[in-house]
Amino acid sequence: MKKITLLALATLASLGACQRPTTQDAATAKKSTAEEKIDSTNIKHFFNTALTEGKSYEWLRDLTSNIGGRLSGSPEAAKAVVWGEQLMKEVGLDSVWLQPVMVPHWVRGAKETAHYEFKGSTIDVPICALGFSIATPKEGITAEVIEVNSLDEAKQLGEKAKGKIVFYNGAFDNKLINTFQAYGGCVGQRFAGAATVGKLGAVGVIVRSMTNGIDDYPHTGSMGYGEIPEENYIPAAAISSRAAENLSTHLKENPNLKFYFKQSCQTLPDAPSFNVVGELKGSEHPDKIMVVGGHLDSWDLGDGAHDDGTGIVQSLEVAYLFKKNGIRPKNTLRVVFFMNEENGLRGAKEYHRLAKENNEVHIGALESDAGGHTPRGFSIDANPKNLQLVQSWKKLLAPYGLHDLVKGGGGADISPLKDEHVTLVGYRPDSQRYFDYHHAVTDTFDKVNKRELELGSASMASILYLMDKYLYTSDTLKP
Amino acid sequence: MKKITLLALATLASLGACQRPTTQDAATAKKSTAEEKIDSTNIKHFFNTALTEGKSYEWLRDLTSNIGGRLSGSPEAAKAVVWGEQLMKEVGLDSVWLQPVMVPHWVRGAKETAHYEFKGSTIDVPICALGFSIATPKEGITAEVIEVNSLDEAKQLGEKAKGKIVFYNGAFDNKLINTFQAYGGCVGQRFAGAATVGKLGAVGVIVRSMTNGIDDYPHTGSMGYGEIPEENYIPAAAISSRAAENLSTHLKENPNLKFYFKQSCQTLPDAPSFNVVGELKGSEHPDKIMVVGGHLDSWDLGDGAHDDGTGIVQSLEVAYLFKKNGIRPKNTLRVVFFMNEENGLRGAKEYHRLAKENNEVHIGALESDAGGHTPRGFSIDANPKNLQLVQSWKKLLAPYGLHDLVKGGGGADISPLKDEHVTLVGYRPDSQRYFDYHHAVTDTFDKVNKRELELGSASMASILYLMDKYLYTSDTLKP
Repeated sequence: MKKITLLALATLASLGACQRPTTQDAATAKKSTAEEKIDSTNIKHFFNTALTEGKSYEWLRDLTSNIGGRLSGSPEAAKAVVWGEQLMKEVGLDSVWLQPVMVPHWVRGAKETAHYEFKGSTIDVPICALGFSIATPKEGITAEVIEVNSLDEAKQLGEKAKGKIVFYNGAFDNKLINTFQAYGGCVGQRFAGAATVGKLGAVGVIVRSMTNGIDDYPHTGSMGYGEIPEENYIPAAAISSRAAENLSTHLKENPNLKFYFKQSCQTLPDAPSFNVVGELKGSEHPDKIMVVGGHLDSWDLGDGAHDDGTGIVQSLEVAYLFKKNGIRPKNTLRVVFFMNEENGLRGAKEYHRLAKENNEVHIGALESDAGGHTPRGFSIDANPKNLQLVQSWKKLLAPYGLHDLVKGGGGADISPLKDEHVTLVGYRPDSQRYFDYHHAVTDTFDKVNKRELELGSASMASILYLMDKYLYTSDTLKP
Repeated sequence: MKKITLLALATLASLGACQRPTTQDAATAKKSTAEEKIDSTNIKHFFNTALTEGKSYEWLRDLTSNIGGRLSGSPEAAKAVVWGEQLMKEVGLDSVWLQPVMVPHWVRGAKETAHYEFKGSTIDVPICALGFSIATPKEGITAEVIEVNSLDEAKQLGEKAKGKIVFYNGAFDNKLINTFQAYGGCVGQRFAGAATVGKLGAVGVIVRSMTNGIDDYPHTGSMGYGEIPEENYIPAAAISSRAAENLSTHLKENPNLKFYFKQSCQTLPDAPSFNVVGELKGSEHPDKIMVVGGHLDSWDLGDGAHDDGTGIVQSLEVAYLFKKNGIRPKNTLRVVFFMNEENGLRGAKEYHRLAKENNEVHIGALESDAGGHTPRGFSIDANPKNLQLVQSWKKLLAPYGLHDLVKGGGGADISPLKDEHVTLVGYRPDSQRYFDYHHAVTDTFDKVNKRELELGSASMASILYLMDKYLYTSDTLKP
């Protein structure tokens, strides 16, 4: 807003102004220029510190190499909780605690297998069970395959689905520049594919992996059976994108080929776990809270580097950058390592429940759960005044590649905090590589670039610094 | 310019306008909105085609896997010329030809070795000869080491350099967001390090690799002896950044340690080679030329994927995207695969010499030689009117992540074309990862992301499309 006014003034001046700034305007402008200089200097310090004394990369190496994939309820997730609590204490947060929460406990079991016969050869197919799927019978499932490209198409199958394995082969729309949009256009097949055709009498579901490219890795992810009766539950697996392309080709030549798959996953009783929480007390409004966080759990196939190890270490590095630069936030800065984002969101819900129970006042929250790639910007979910305010910081953020300050959701883990007085912000790094690794065995530490990770931490510290200083809150926001 | 005017008008309107647009202004604005819509549609088509029917990734796989590193004068560089000519013909350019040029022919010889004794152990050191360096004597060189952090410091060594190996350990300034700036701050050590201390009586030079991070790979690159007498030539090698850190530490404990290194490189007589050139004839001004290019040669250590295989395949993909979308440029679009950018720039100089000899009129040139990472923008070297014009396209380019339209050099290979009537543009993708691989054994195909590469091709096609349509030329540019 401020920027537009200044530009307008400059324009008027150059055209021979017919309106002049008042003395009061000039004083405000002078003050705001001085503040802008302070802000720009502090932001520069965040970046300098992250790029020369950053810790996030080594923290991430430790988490991914020494603990690895950490699905909710697993021993690795439990180790990650201990790791997170310990690390927050080492960074010197004012207080660190655990929030107990019961989480779903789904386990994959033995490695899945799948194959079919085609022209006298056995084609082995890389698959993996989807999270929450039931197992196949011990001997596996063999059935003919019926291919569809969307949930809508599947809904029309009717009788044709009976006794079949339904093969969802809808691919990402690679024309979409932001790959999260392409994901959004497909992920329904993964989540609701089994429920949709289970009630039609299908015996299993194979879903093309959620990825832009053609690779040999099945990408797992969450699914659900929704409201369908338990007797209609059918097993669901992801198939690699290359195997999906091949299967589709082979089905054209032999529509009656028999597909076999076997998986041994199961859902055990809920398990105890924790959110890990730590905070830097606010100097002026310690009772007002800003959250920065990511999720500590991950899928089990890779080591959960980009999803969401990077979000975890960046969130903690934000606090480190504040401390290292001697900047104490006015409001309390709370770092949260949420548990169970991938299959349940139980940590996020419990965090919110406790916040309400304790009458906590949140003014903003920032989530990093879109990978650790090079910075591009933030998505903002806020009331119009705060949305405009955040977008007015573009000049301060653009020198660091942060050009995108767009209206949009903040992220899954902070979404329960949504309220007209809470500004939710999602960190949005470059999305091109993200779905190459997402939920697959390839989501590993070596895919993370140190500088990109550190630039992300500094980007997050910068916007939190500005949020802390300038956000309109329920006290200052006039209707 | 146009954008600023529109914004100014909008501002005036909102303040209660004291100047109104004339009817003529309104008509111009209407026309320009219609044109902007056409431009935006054509740009969208470039991106759609690149992301769904792009060829660059498979071309690059072919070049890097089947030919590999292709240093000027090498058999691989000769193969790359044949490959390039053939590929341009396959894409269906109107004409394709080779421009003969003699190039330097430096060869590395046997793998370099280096080591020193420290606390009773032998430390092996990863080094590689710098391009154009002389060999060590056959038995290698053993000498004490003197460490400096800059050329300036080296110049002050005086007598102290005599008989020593000078170790340039100046590191990248990692605080600089654009890593090319950090490179610019250090590369003098590599290029002029040997000449600087050769005349002081030093016996060899070891230069810290030009990279942001700490890794185990020596990064090669060009050096020169400048004007110093041949008897002062001394061998120069790059040392991995980790080995440089270790050596520096060990020198503090034992300033008299003896460093050994051996390399067998030599400069052979100049060898015949070629630029590969192809063009799409302009529909309105076939005599006016716009160049798009990169360099076909590379260093010998990796397979020259990011430097500059990506620039090569993107430049050809630009022509492919024009053809595939039925867009014929008004001016002639000339694709140039320059030879010998890395150590000599002979191809670029010969291209320019021939252009002058043949009285060719160039109106613009675009170079891609900054890696194949995700798009960020362009640097522009043009007269003020064309600079402003190119910057006015931001609205059309920003949706594709192209926010940086900054004044700056276009690139080494197109630099000889510099003239007040020629607009030179450099494609500037994200720079964070570039120096991880630059000139090292790690610059390989697997570091290139398909979508990032294709987005680059489309970015380049888009700006060339706009340059073709709108650039002020010597005919239309009024003083």
